[in-house]
Amino acid sequence: MARDGARLVPQGQAMSHVLRPDPRWSSSAIRDLLEQARAPGVISLAGGLPAAELLPTERLRDRSAHVFELHGAHTLQYGPSVGEPALREILGSYEAVHPDDLIVTAGSQQALDLVARGLTRPGDVVVIESPGYVGAIQVLQAAGLDLIACPVDHDGLDTAALEELLGNGLRPALVYVNPNHQNPTGGSLSPARQAQLLALADQFGFWVVADDPYREITFDRGVPSPEHGLHPATSDHVLLLGSLSKTLSPGLRLGWCSGHRSAITRLEMAKQAADLHTATFNQLLAASVLSDHRWWIQHLQALRVAYQERRAQLLDALELHLPDARVSRQSGGFFLWLELSGVDTTTLLTAALEAGVAFVPGSVFSLDDQPNDALRLSYSYADVDTIEEAVSRLAEATMRAAIRS
Amino acid sequence: MARDGARLVPQGQAMSHVLRPDPRWSSSAIRDLLEQARAPGVISLAGGLPAAELLPTERLRDRSAHVFELHGAHTLQYGPSVGEPALREILGSYEAVHPDDLIVTAGSQQALDLVARGLTRPGDVVVIESPGYVGAIQVLQAAGLDLIACPVDHDGLDTAALEELLGNGLRPALVYVNPNHQNPTGGSLSPARQAQLLALADQFGFWVVADDPYREITFDRGVPSPEHGLHPATSDHVLLLGSLSKTLSPGLRLGWCSGHRSAITRLEMAKQAADLHTATFNQLLAASVLSDHRWWIQHLQALRVAYQERRAQLLDALELHLPDARVSRQSGGFFLWLELSGVDTTTLLTAALEAGVAFVPGSVFSLDDQPNDALRLSYSYADVDTIEEAVSRLAEATMRAAIRS
Repeated sequence: MARDGARLVPQGQAMSHVLRPDPRWSSSAIRDLLEQARAPGVISLAGGLPAAELLPTERLRDRSAHVFELHGAHTLQYGPSVGEPALREILGSYEAVHPDDLIVTAGSQQALDLVARGLTRPGDVVVIESPGYVGAIQVLQAAGLDLIACPVDHDGLDTAALEELLGNGLRPALVYVNPNHQNPTGGSLSPARQAQLLALADQFGFWVVADDPYREITFDRGVPSPEHGLHPATSDHVLLLGSLSKTLSPGLRLGWCSGHRSAITRLEMAKQAADLHTATFNQLLAASVLSDHRWWIQHLQALRVAYQERRAQLLDALELHLPDARVSRQSGGFFLWLELSGVDTTTLLTAALEAGVAFVPGSVFSLDDQPNDALRLSYSYADVDTIEEAVSRLAEATMRAAIRS
Repeated sequence: MARDGARLVPQGQAMSHVLRPDPRWSSSAIRDLLEQARAPGVISLAGGLPAAELLPTERLRDRSAHVFELHGAHTLQYGPSVGEPALREILGSYEAVHPDDLIVTAGSQQALDLVARGLTRPGDVVVIESPGYVGAIQVLQAAGLDLIACPVDHDGLDTAALEELLGNGLRPALVYVNPNHQNPTGGSLSPARQAQLLALADQFGFWVVADDPYREITFDRGVPSPEHGLHPATSDHVLLLGSLSKTLSPGLRLGWCSGHRSAITRLEMAKQAADLHTATFNQLLAASVLSDHRWWIQHLQALRVAYQERRAQLLDALELHLPDARVSRQSGGFFLWLELSGVDTTTLLTAALEAGVAFVPGSVFSLDDQPNDALRLSYSYADVDTIEEAVSRLAEATMRAAIRS
């Protein structure tokens, strides 16, 4: 179409001639509805964005200039598919793996995409947490995989339920988990369940994909060290995914996957096909910022303090306005998971948007899309001064929805 | 694996337990050999990198600071899957399409990946140019597509041969072409063949993917305007892929696809699954640089002059040292395509690397991988002072290879 919308040549064929329907790429009614979360006047507790004021904008601006000075044209040139050596070195040390056992990706979303494409085949069975991360459901479905849901609670994936599935003959190629502060429930995989998951992986031969973007955002206990969780050193079956999106900047699109070198080589080939390599400047910038270890440690500590305060505010507001809501136990991350007994949260979303507040209903995080009484509230992005008002609007919408039903 | 290579826990299972062989991700012997092109002392005419000294490093350094000043935390935040509005606006104007009919991608490599995943299904037939762009072969094979080769000459894709394939019952979902200065032959699709290709697309209902990274690097005639080539305004079947990798910076990873809005919506969903969105900073930086139209036009003109000089040097050196080589006609881009009658260029590569020069043998650009007498020489990246020495070494290797055989 030309800019003015006019056609230079009359069209002989309808788009259906080439654009065939494809179940992998069907749109979701709820996701369309959530577009309204951006409308003016709506306070959004829906998205999982980091707070704008907690992004280290000045630091990155200053280091940008430094990166250009130091690296010159290298900053702008093609680079290796597996990642810039300087960043692999630092991330390897951060994850306690050899740099050769780590590939840099465009966010951990791409790491999961490469794992799905490089290490599974269409039709393979994969197990996901239910409720589970929407982005994972999307990318695994896009790869033509057969998704099976396994329940999750405040101790993470229910490995007894997984064992039962395996006992009944299920043979997954991959099991996907958020080991710390799971999205959306906030649960963290207990050491006992980690051990059971690894034993099952060894016995049945599947990949354990530990997607761990929230590890640094731990409040009520020490930040878990990577080596003591699901880690490539513990089992060749573990692929550990990481991200700088919650700590440094989502807009730089930097994540990684670490694992057995032969798996990383496969991901490198998939990466080459996908987009050749991750942006060079972005990698050099992150390497420059993370190499100032002292600043980085202080920055992470400041994030923990700030997000913990936001969580406290949200919890206080819930106590005040929605005292009957059941809030799942968690010790970090960006989200609270609520159950509003007897309330269909999919229907509630429409009333909530009318009242000027957005959240994500529980059905979005499940495979069957069935309405349920759960919902996810994010405390990471909303303005601290608006959190109480948001919850007050949510309570109002809940009351209105109860009257209507 | 822990950093020191020691295992914390003995491994019970071999990697074959989880890492199954997969024909989509097999490595290539020649590509492994070409790793040697990076060895010290080897002059590489192999890669298609832009010259480091022609990258606008200072300009981008200065604009980076400006972008941080102007946009603050927005620079570092999540952004829309379809791209930053500011960059879509400028690229839309550049490609003569409505901004809503364009999606920003991580290089045109990713644009092709999204097209393959979003608009075809595994098992679909796609037609590629032979010889053709290696990166396209890789990504289309990775998507599980069935690749069919169609010959190409200095007028681009042989559309008569395509018509014959279609007449014999071939029903491709997609036909992939480089319309200007094709990689590797340098040919450009003639207006008559463009018209025939579009007529065939309308008749048989396939996508025409016009991947056009070299359009601006045109020497001997005016730079083609997008509207007069394969363009979405001419047919709903056209998807026009573009890239800033040859003109502004490959390391920023910025490309795009423009086409019918319903196709762009599908690509947007595929993009969301692949990596959520293209890096925000990179998009804002490119928008800032390209919005200075005067600078951009001058920069492109300077590139054309510089690359044309490099091509002249390479042609002169070939005339001097390899007068029997048949050089394909071209009028721009980064490559010359040579035929060395009776020489197996796959074998020649080993001798050439010994002599201290690298090129890409013709077999790499074909589906059957059969050795042939063609090869690709790049004049874009080698130091201007070394081009003659490189060709002299190539001539020496050719003589040695002739004696051996």
